[in-house]
Amino acid sequence: MPAKPFALSVKVVIHDDDGRCLLLKRSAASAHNAGKWDLPGGKVDTGESFDVALLREVVEETGLTVELETVLGAASSDAPAKVVVYVIMGGRLVAGDVRLSDEHEASIWVPRAELGTVDVCEQFREFARAYGGVDA
Amino acid sequence: MPAKPFALSVKVVIHDDDGRCLLLKRSAASAHNAGKWDLPGGKVDTGESFDVALLREVVEETGLTVELETVLGAASSDAPAKVVVYVIMGGRLVAGDVRLSDEHEASIWVPRAELGTVDVCEQFREFARAYGGVDA
Repeated sequence: MPAKPFALSVKVVIHDDDGRCLLLKRSAASAHNAGKWDLPGGKVDTGESFDVALLREVVEETGLTVELETVLGAASSDAPAKVVVYVIMGGRLVAGDVRLSDEHEASIWVPRAELGTVDVCEQFREFARAYGGVDA
Repeated sequence: MPAKPFALSVKVVIHDDDGRCLLLKRSAASAHNAGKWDLPGGKVDTGESFDVALLREVVEETGLTVELETVLGAASSDAPAKVVVYVIMGGRLVAGDVRLSDEHEASIWVPRAELGTVDVCEQFREFARAYGGVDA
């Protein structure tokens, strides 16, 4: 594999009190994974700690207040110019109602056991199946 | 769980051409996990990209030239003042012979299938067992 730069992205599975997880549908205009279901989160900016970056992205994308708990997994996607490594955190919904940004066109709260059946972004398929228990 | 700050650490499983993985034994004077087997790597400094941080740590701790490949997993450890999240990358030994720093007192190349049998740092036990195939 030719050496490419790596970029770090942090995502979160937000759990509500009913054991459901939040997914966001990427807008049809997205350059990548248009129309696929995604996790909230995004790139870590230079000089930004990853938990601060993640909570910032969560507010921008969902308007929710979330408390991060622990790390659930990792994933990666191989883009032409870089490899994106994703850290997937778990978090707990503290307050708020979902208010989407332009990046997404829908949101859904999915029972954890059904995560593996949703048409998520390719790089999260394996994680969603494992965390949803399909492979357990 | 009370909210604590998170810190990011990046580790690497360095593979040689014989399918073995490099582990480093933490010095007896280490504040944490003294005498346990560890993966090369360490904290990401503010403003530093994680792949640059990791290659810097690998040189400092082992003297080896390594090419990073993909992400293999994630882990975490709960310290009194923070939660450390580990990204565990896979890498390939390109050149060099191991030359340890003061942080470690021994190194060993372990066949991947034996990773789960080594007395690694607690936070990597689950990963080592899974990656070594003990749980497969």
